[in-house]
Amino acid sequence: MPGRHFLQIPGPTNVPDRVLRAMDMPTIDHRGPEFKKLAESCLTRIRDVFGTTNPVIIYPASGTGAWEAALVNTLSPGDHVLMYETGHFATLWKKLAEKLGLVPEFIAGSWRSGVDPAAIEARLAEDKGHQIKAVCVVHNETSTGCTTRVDEVRAAINAAGHPALLMVDTISSLGSIKYEHDAWGVDVTVGGSQKGLMLPPGLSFNAVSDKAIEASKTSKLPRSFWSWDEMIEANAQNVFPFTPATNLLYGLDEALTMMNEEGLDNVYARHQRHAAATRAAVTHWGGNGSVEILCEDPRHYSGSLTAVQLPEGYNADDYRKVVLENFNMSLGNGLSKLAGRVFRIGHLGDFNDLMLMGTLSGVEMGFELAGIPYRKGGTQAAMEVLTSKDQA
Amino acid sequence: MPGRHFLQIPGPTNVPDRVLRAMDMPTIDHRGPEFKKLAESCLTRIRDVFGTTNPVIIYPASGTGAWEAALVNTLSPGDHVLMYETGHFATLWKKLAEKLGLVPEFIAGSWRSGVDPAAIEARLAEDKGHQIKAVCVVHNETSTGCTTRVDEVRAAINAAGHPALLMVDTISSLGSIKYEHDAWGVDVTVGGSQKGLMLPPGLSFNAVSDKAIEASKTSKLPRSFWSWDEMIEANAQNVFPFTPATNLLYGLDEALTMMNEEGLDNVYARHQRHAAATRAAVTHWGGNGSVEILCEDPRHYSGSLTAVQLPEGYNADDYRKVVLENFNMSLGNGLSKLAGRVFRIGHLGDFNDLMLMGTLSGVEMGFELAGIPYRKGGTQAAMEVLTSKDQA
Amino acid sequence: MPGRHFLQIPGPTNVPDRVLRAMDMPTIDHRGPEFKKLAESCLTRIRDVFGTTNPVIIYPASGTGAWEAALVNTLSPGDHVLMYETGHFATLWKKLAEKLGLVPEFIAGSWRSGVDPAAIEARLAEDKGHQIKAVCVVHNETSTGCTTRVDEVRAAINAAGHPALLMVDTISSLGSIKYEHDAWGVDVTVGGSQKGLMLPPGLSFNAVSDKAIEASKTSKLPRSFWSWDEMIEANAQNVFPFTPATNLLYGLDEALTMMNEEGLDNVYARHQRHAAATRAAVTHWGGNGSVEILCEDPRHYSGSLTAVQLPEGYNADDYRKVVLENFNMSLGNGLSKLAGRVFRIGHLGDFNDLMLMGTLSGVEMGFELAGIPYRKGGTQAAMEVLTSKDQA
Amino acid sequence: MPGRHFLQIPGPTNVPDRVLRAMDMPTIDHRGPEFKKLAESCLTRIRDVFGTTNPVIIYPASGTGAWEAALVNTLSPGDHVLMYETGHFATLWKKLAEKLGLVPEFIAGSWRSGVDPAAIEARLAEDKGHQIKAVCVVHNETSTGCTTRVDEVRAAINAAGHPALLMVDTISSLGSIKYEHDAWGVDVTVGGSQKGLMLPPGLSFNAVSDKAIEASKTSKLPRSFWSWDEMIEANAQNVFPFTPATNLLYGLDEALTMMNEEGLDNVYARHQRHAAATRAAVTHWGGNGSVEILCEDPRHYSGSLTAVQLPEGYNADDYRKVVLENFNMSLGNGLSKLAGRVFRIGHLGDFNDLMLMGTLSGVEMGFELAGIPYRKGGTQAAMEVLTSKDQA
Repeated sequence: MPGRHFLQIPGPTNVPDRVLRAMDMPTIDHRGPEFKKLAESCLTRIRDVFGTTNPVIIYPASGTGAWEAALVNTLSPGDHVLMYETGHFATLWKKLAEKLGLVPEFIAGSWRSGVDPAAIEARLAEDKGHQIKAVCVVHNETSTGCTTRVDEVRAAINAAGHPALLMVDTISSLGSIKYEHDAWGVDVTVGGSQKGLMLPPGLSFNAVSDKAIEASKTSKLPRSFWSWDEMIEANAQNVFPFTPATNLLYGLDEALTMMNEEGLDNVYARHQRHAAATRAAVTHWGGNGSVEILCEDPRHYSGSLTAVQLPEGYNADDYRKVVLENFNMSLGNGLSKLAGRVFRIGHLGDFNDLMLMGTLSGVEMGFELAGIPYRKGGTQAAMEVLTSKDQA
Repeated sequence: MPGRHFLQIPGPTNVPDRVLRAMDMPTIDHRGPEFKKLAESCLTRIRDVFGTTNPVIIYPASGTGAWEAALVNTLSPGDHVLMYETGHFATLWKKLAEKLGLVPEFIAGSWRSGVDPAAIEARLAEDKGHQIKAVCVVHNETSTGCTTRVDEVRAAINAAGHPALLMVDTISSLGSIKYEHDAWGVDVTVGGSQKGLMLPPGLSFNAVSDKAIEASKTSKLPRSFWSWDEMIEANAQNVFPFTPATNLLYGLDEALTMMNEEGLDNVYARHQRHAAATRAAVTHWGGNGSVEILCEDPRHYSGSLTAVQLPEGYNADDYRKVVLENFNMSLGNGLSKLAGRVFRIGHLGDFNDLMLMGTLSGVEMGFELAGIPYRKGGTQAAMEVLTSKDQA
Repeated sequence: MPGRHFLQIPGPTNVPDRVLRAMDMPTIDHRGPEFKKLAESCLTRIRDVFGTTNPVIIYPASGTGAWEAALVNTLSPGDHVLMYETGHFATLWKKLAEKLGLVPEFIAGSWRSGVDPAAIEARLAEDKGHQIKAVCVVHNETSTGCTTRVDEVRAAINAAGHPALLMVDTISSLGSIKYEHDAWGVDVTVGGSQKGLMLPPGLSFNAVSDKAIEASKTSKLPRSFWSWDEMIEANAQNVFPFTPATNLLYGLDEALTMMNEEGLDNVYARHQRHAAATRAAVTHWGGNGSVEILCEDPRHYSGSLTAVQLPEGYNADDYRKVVLENFNMSLGNGLSKLAGRVFRIGHLGDFNDLMLMGTLSGVEMGFELAGIPYRKGGTQAAMEVLTSKDQA
Repeated sequence: MPGRHFLQIPGPTNVPDRVLRAMDMPTIDHRGPEFKKLAESCLTRIRDVFGTTNPVIIYPASGTGAWEAALVNTLSPGDHVLMYETGHFATLWKKLAEKLGLVPEFIAGSWRSGVDPAAIEARLAEDKGHQIKAVCVVHNETSTGCTTRVDEVRAAINAAGHPALLMVDTISSLGSIKYEHDAWGVDVTVGGSQKGLMLPPGLSFNAVSDKAIEASKTSKLPRSFWSWDEMIEANAQNVFPFTPATNLLYGLDEALTMMNEEGLDNVYARHQRHAAATRAAVTHWGGNGSVEILCEDPRHYSGSLTAVQLPEGYNADDYRKVVLENFNMSLGNGLSKLAGRVFRIGHLGDFNDLMLMGTLSGVEMGFELAGIPYRKGGTQAAMEVLTSKDQA
């Protein structure tokens, strides 16, 4: 199909040319002097994106691995972990915990909002024996477009006076939605390369607190590839204990440069602006009671993606197929219980106003061609947001 | 600025990744066996795009050179050539002819339509002594967005019974707007790489008729770099008489493959569809007597670009600056007498519906931010064209 | 430094332009139809390189992860595994097994040859109770340049009538030295992307036998990221259970095409020819009792790298520094007990005669500049091998 | 064929990855603000390579065009020009002059040395009427590997007290062999992109003196594409009068950065060192009266290429075919009267010691396979040059 594909799933995102080109260079000796400069640049600067001054571990593995790493480094077989059912990915993380021999307690959720901090606090307050060793939440639930207020979760743990570790998945928020590992008192933050960091998949991250490192010294789950200790020790010399994904590190280095050039706060503001414009479009389209934003709580609206629920009787996957075949755009599908009911618009990463308008136009024209009821003018509503003084 | 730049000048166009990547390979020996395969593939397949079975000369030079080549190969000092003032580029070609020592006769035009074949016929009919050696017209005038009916020009020459050569500039139509060098009886067609062929600038072309080759044998303008004879002779062996632009040929080969994959007729239909949607937008925006399509004759509407005239009192370059700085999009400027009055939207090359909608949204939002009077809803009008059954 | 870097460590290897360029394309939706074609092409064709008709699991992780995967999928805490000290990497794999809670028995070795099958047979014959669940060997020990005869190890296990699984690390032999997963009765083969497969690091592999899959159904080591079951199930539909390293798969697909174009047997023969030429050079240089090939057993000579031992009193890392700084070439260092005593020449991957001669010339000139005793003419000896009829 | 091709013709040269990657970026608007920065960077920094503080014109055309440009900007029909038969390219330039209507006087040469300044002086001294308007010489004759002393040619013109312009072709010396446009009193210097500048073909250059610019105001040869005046005027604003070869300018900008990083004097010294090593090899090979360096005058030895003459009865093109098919290396062919007698080794551009040793090894092994008589050990002789203190 002619022209550029619109990759508007909520990740992997549109990788900028500068990043692809940086990766398109000969692999170098990962034990030589040139590599050390690269490693230092990445290891130092990635911390800013997490909002931490502590080490960030970079795995030559995609994001699911960093979920596993967070758990196997800090916990022991049979440990209870408190998790929260924000959606599909929270559920997957819970299943992963079970497979590793942990005992997740799963607080049920509607899949239409983020974490309710009060529920966390209530459960922890009951846990007088501190059987629960960790609270694990997803910052931005990629399956629903609901963003949890991590600061409020921290406050809930504090209010309960509970010593559990706080672990947060930022796979689809890192580099897109403001995040503060240190300031929010997070112990392990899990991230991946292929969303806000504008890279292909293949790198993942653990940002760690001192408390998490301390926990890793006594935890009993077997581990080797994911072990923090050898990584942290080697990284202090700007090397890695085993072969790193060198060319993806070239890309990471360039992506960090691009984020610095734009300024992290500007990156976050840009994402919020595009999210607001997208919601204006969806709200307009659904004015007659048709499509609607899946997330029900405006305080939990996501800055990086918007999940849209179709009216009863319409299949979102059929709709997505119409969009792909007519407009060369990939939209995200509904996952597990949302399958066929929801599609998701990714508006994150290396993205700008006109790419957003192309995206929203494709969504609107897709409604027309697929026969989904909608009110015309959603893209016009989005343009009004984008040209309003408040958003400029 | 984040995200992808929208390069919506009427050329150079958005070069597809496949073409850029094809060019991003080591240069090879242009006298070795591997090069001969490349040359054969390019020299053979480029003919289809021109609609000819005759040789097409490929210059390692940008398009202006191919203008010069057309003239110096066929004409002699003092020869009269009949040219037609369709706009800025027709005027530049005329100036070039003067510099070469030719005597152009320039039929005045409004810059709001293509060539009037009747005027050509009338002048040729007067030229009983056949002092005029060539008729030179621009197929698609890049400065105005008016497309001349070359078949009608041919008919006019025939009607006058005049032996002049017919030379046509297709710089901004080749590979975008249907063109038939052989069927329309054109003697020299001038083309460039950086528009419909989806390449960076640096290659240019002369398609030649037998009559043009015959003329080249007696023409007297001095030439060497541009000489057809050595090119045609060497090309028959799939080599070039001097160093070709090897890496641009890699790109040309890939671009020809892409055009074949899509099908040339589909390529042309796609361009016409995008042009129709663009005009629907402009017509809607200007409904209150504001902006308007520069081209006044619907039979001359261009399939590859649309020039838009602003209402009196508004400066198009100020507007373009607003668009560039706010929306990371380059629009074409008004040239010479249209400077400041007109901007041009390129909708050619490797382009699709959502890129067009991003483009038109940027134009509309630019009106809003720059304070240009317009009627909201132009992008909506464009979407209606794109989703209509007639255009699907 | 001007010119191309010579990356002659035994991996990562020189990534060919075609592979880098294939990776330098926009990431696509890993759940869309285009991705499925890519996945099918990779998943099908990678089997040939392993010599298997069974599934090969592709991890979005570097090679160390595939070591871990082999063990955690098949074994239970406390299981004994018989390993063999061929060198540094065999030792690392043993340490990894310990960290995972396994009990490795480690047969001591000289680091100057591959595995002694008789020692394997003897130990297994003693193990009447079949406490040993797996025999783990390194096919080509990257730290020493000694290649184990895996067929003989298989024969030894059979001779002992022992049911242990056979696991083989082919990190630095896969795609360079002939390997037959099925024919040699291997149960799990571990591979990585950055050596013979000519890719950057970031992908790793497990080829699995039916017996290994059967073992995975009852094994008790906790696992999730590395689990074969979800991978095999998803791969049957040409998808992955979690985000794959899409752009590295682009590269893998291109690398497999290149290997098919050359023919796998030709690839292996090329590597043996370059290894023979390299050994001829080293033998000549050391003719006066100076440098020598580390591997003492000609039946175990490696086709992909040659480790060279310096005479007493000379430091190999100082030498490597001279080579890097003067000749822009990276050579491999001596690892653990070989540190400072040995350097390693990688002659694998996308490599040809003139690259080899550049490499060997750099080694020889490095001897001169670093003051290492050597006999001039090693490169001449290598050229004699390369131009001999036997090797042509 | 596996591994990297050795492109050892004397241009196009091995384009470095950094340059190819710089070119592999989207084309931008050549009238926008970003382009102006690029143009300024190129237009300013290219002057250093020519050794001039005057403007350098950059043509979007390959090198032959710049030959034509030098002549058409400064001369009038019928003007006499004094040229010198150093080899094939000097002869081509002479033919080009004839085609343009000039009257070249061609001083015969042996094709085994550069220009004899005394012959220039003698002819000019005779030309009392100053009928000769220009002296045109080739700095480094690419067909023979002989470098003319341009300073001595300048001195000869001065000694004759003749006002002719001095024009110099530096196609295969620019950026490889020290050159001083201003200091040597050259009026027009002709250059191309695909040799020492490490770019693909497609750009060419005219460096101009004030005297040359003055001549261009009265010269009568017709010209438009090649006209200096519009170029110089537009370049002063960092734009071009017609579409430039934007992506090649990206590459030029990166190449200039690389040359600055290395330092121009270091670049020249590196080329001389490689040339010396190459000649040591050829001299050794030919010690038994076989192959020999074509250039007979050591003061004219070329720093960028070495032409090698085979003994009678051996065909150089057959030999080159053996080298290409066995060793994946392209060597330059003998041109016109040297056809079949000579091959040429390019050792210029982005090149280093090990690339040179790979090259020379391929030459030597080619002798062996093709049955050319030679004395073994030429590569050894080259290594002795490269490791000698004088050359380090």
